[in-house]
Amino acid sequence: MSAGDRHILVIGIGAGDPGHLTLAAVAAMRRADVFFVLDKGSEKDGLIRLRRQLLDQHVGTPYRLVEGEDPERDRSRQSHGPYTDAVRDWRHRRADVCERLISEELAPGECGAFLVWGDPGLYDSTLGILREIRSRGTVTFGYEVVPGISSVSALTAAHGTPLNQVGGPVLLTPGRLLDEGIGSADDVVVMLDAHQRFTGHTDEDLWIYWGAYVGTEDEILVSGPLDRVAGRIVELRAEARARHGWIMDTYLLRRSRPGEEPHEEPGDSTGVPAGGDRR
Amino acid sequence: MSAGDRHILVIGIGAGDPGHLTLAAVAAMRRADVFFVLDKGSEKDGLIRLRRQLLDQHVGTPYRLVEGEDPERDRSRQSHGPYTDAVRDWRHRRADVCERLISEELAPGECGAFLVWGDPGLYDSTLGILREIRSRGTVTFGYEVVPGISSVSALTAAHGTPLNQVGGPVLLTPGRLLDEGIGSADDVVVMLDAHQRFTGHTDEDLWIYWGAYVGTEDEILVSGPLDRVAGRIVELRAEARARHGWIMDTYLLRRSRPGEEPHEEPGDSTGVPAGGDRR
Ligand SMILES: C[S@@+](CC[C@H](N)C(=O)[O-])C[C@H]1O[C@@H](n2cnc3c(N)ncnc32)[C@H](O)[C@@H]1O
Ligand SMILES: C[S@@+](CC[C@H](N)C(=O)[O-])C[C@H]1O[C@@H](n2cnc3c(N)ncnc32)[C@H](O)[C@@H]1O
Repeated sequence: MSAGDRHILVIGIGAGDPGHLTLAAVAAMRRADVFFVLDKGSEKDGLIRLRRQLLDQHVGTPYRLVEGEDPERDRSRQSHGPYTDAVRDWRHRRADVCERLISEELAPGECGAFLVWGDPGLYDSTLGILREIRSRGTVTFGYEVVPGISSVSALTAAHGTPLNQVGGPVLLTPGRLLDEGIGSADDVVVMLDAHQRFTGHTDEDLWIYWGAYVGTEDEILVSGPLDRVAGRIVELRAEARARHGWIMDTYLLRRSRPGEEPHEEPGDSTGVPAGGDRR
Repeated sequence: MSAGDRHILVIGIGAGDPGHLTLAAVAAMRRADVFFVLDKGSEKDGLIRLRRQLLDQHVGTPYRLVEGEDPERDRSRQSHGPYTDAVRDWRHRRADVCERLISEELAPGECGAFLVWGDPGLYDSTLGILREIRSRGTVTFGYEVVPGISSVSALTAAHGTPLNQVGGPVLLTPGRLLDEGIGSADDVVVMLDAHQRFTGHTDEDLWIYWGAYVGTEDEILVSGPLDRVAGRIVELRAEARARHGWIMDTYLLRRSRPGEEPHEEPGDSTGVPAGGDRR
C-alpha cells in the first residue's frame, strides 16, 4: 500500500460485551481517521450505543464519526421474490451509500473504519459491500479485517457449553433455512430468526441453549429440553422485544447422542435452578 | 459462589495472534491465582510459547503455572475402535490429571485458569473435562468461560473473506467427516485434518481458503480454485510441517453459486498476485 492510498479497517467489536473487544481491535481503532456507521431502524440505538462507548473509552482523542443513511430494505419484495435477491438489491443500495462515504469523507492516504457487530465474517454485509465497491472501480482502497468475538462464541461461553460434541460437526444457519429441517449435524446454531422456528422442532429430541442480548446488561439465557422450555422462550422473547423495541437472539439446538454423557443441568455453572432461565 | 469455593476460569486466548486476546481475557487472567497447562507432544512448545508470552505481558506480577502431565493418546486404539471412543477414553485420563491439579494445586477460595487455544467452545476438550470432573463429585468448583477468537474467525479475517454467502449456512467439521462428502452447505470449514482431505474434492467446483499457523509469524495463506491450488497447498504444508515439527491448519471450502458475484481474486486485499500465497 502506498502512502496515497485509502485504507479501510473492518473491525469486529464483539456481540455486545465491551470486554469482548480484542487488543488488536483497540489498536486498529486508534489507527482510524474516521469511523463509518450504517445501521438500521429500531435496532440502531442499541447497536450504536456500544460503538460510541467503545470509541469514548479506547480512542480517547476526539474522533470523527460519519453516519451514512441506511437505505430502507424492501420487505415487500422479500416476501415475493427470493430472499437472496432482496438482500442483494439492498446490498447494492448500501454499497452506493458507502461508496459515497469513502470517496467524500475519506481523503487519499487516510484510514477509515467500520466497527462491525460480532465477527465481520459472520452474517454481516460489510465485506460484501466493500468488494462490490472495489469491483466498480470508481474509488480505490485496500482493506483489512480484524476478527471479533461472534455471537456464537458469546452464546456458548455464556451457557458454559461447548459448541460441538466430541468429533461432531456444527451447522451455522439463518433461521429461514430451518424450515427445511435441521439436517444431519448434531449441533445447529440458528441466527437471524425472527420467527422462533425452534417451535417447529419440539417433537425431536433436542436440547436448546437460547440467548438474547448476550453479553449485554439485558442478557437473557434459557436452556433445557426443547419441548419443555420452548413456550417459556417464546414468552420471554415477546416480552423483551416489546420492552426494548427490538431483539437480537441466537440459539444452539443440540441433538442428544445415544450413549453420550447426559447434558449438564442448565445453570449448573451459574447457580440458577435446572430448567430455569437467567437474566 | 461462596468465599470458600474453588473457581475455574476457562479463558479463550485466540488462535495464535497475541492481539486477538480480548480485554475480558486480560481481566480474567489477572484474577487467577494459578494457571493450569496440559498440552501434548511436539505441538507443545509452540502452543505454550504464546501462553507464556501473554502471561508475561499481561499479568505482570509473578504468576504460578502448573503443568499437568498429558496422558498419551492411544493412537492404535483410535485406528481400531471408533474415533469418539478413543477420544472419550483419552478425555477420562485427562480428567484424572486435571482433577488432581484442581484438588492439589488449587486451595478452596482460590481461582484457577485454563488458557485455551482459540475459542473454548470449538473442538477443545477443557469444558468436557471440567464437566466430567464435576460429575464425579470428588472436588467441587464453579467455572466460567471467556470466549476467544477462534481459528475460523482468524482464517476468514486473514483472507479478507466472509465465512458465509448471502443467507447461506456454514458447516464446521473435523476433517475426518469429510470422507462422507461435504454435504449441502455452500461453505464448509475443515479443522483437525491431518490428511489433506481437500485433495479428494478437486473434481467439485470449489474455492479453497487455506491457512496454517494463522495469526502467528509463521502464517501461510493460500486461496484459489481448489483444483488449481490443491497441489501447491500439499507441498507447502509438508514443507512447513517438516520445518516446524508440527502444523495447525484450517480451510474453508466454498461452492460457487450460479449467478453469484465472482470470487475476489486471492490476494486482492493483501497485494500478492492472484492465485498466489502469502506468508
Ligand atoms: C446480522 S447478524 C450479525 C452477526 C454478527 N456478525 C456476529 O458475529 O454475531 C445478527 C444476528 O446475530 C445474532 N446476534 C448478534 N448479537 C447477538 C447477541 N448479543 N445476542 C444474541 N444474538 C446475537 C442474532 O441472531 C442476530 O439476528
Ligand atoms: C483442537 S482444535 C482447537 C480449535 C480452537 N479451540 C479454535 O477455536 O480455533 C485444533 C485445530 O484448530 C485449527 N487451528 C487452531 N489454531 C490455528 C491456527 N492458528 N491456524 C490454523 N488453524 C488453526 C486447526 O484446524 C487445528 O487442527
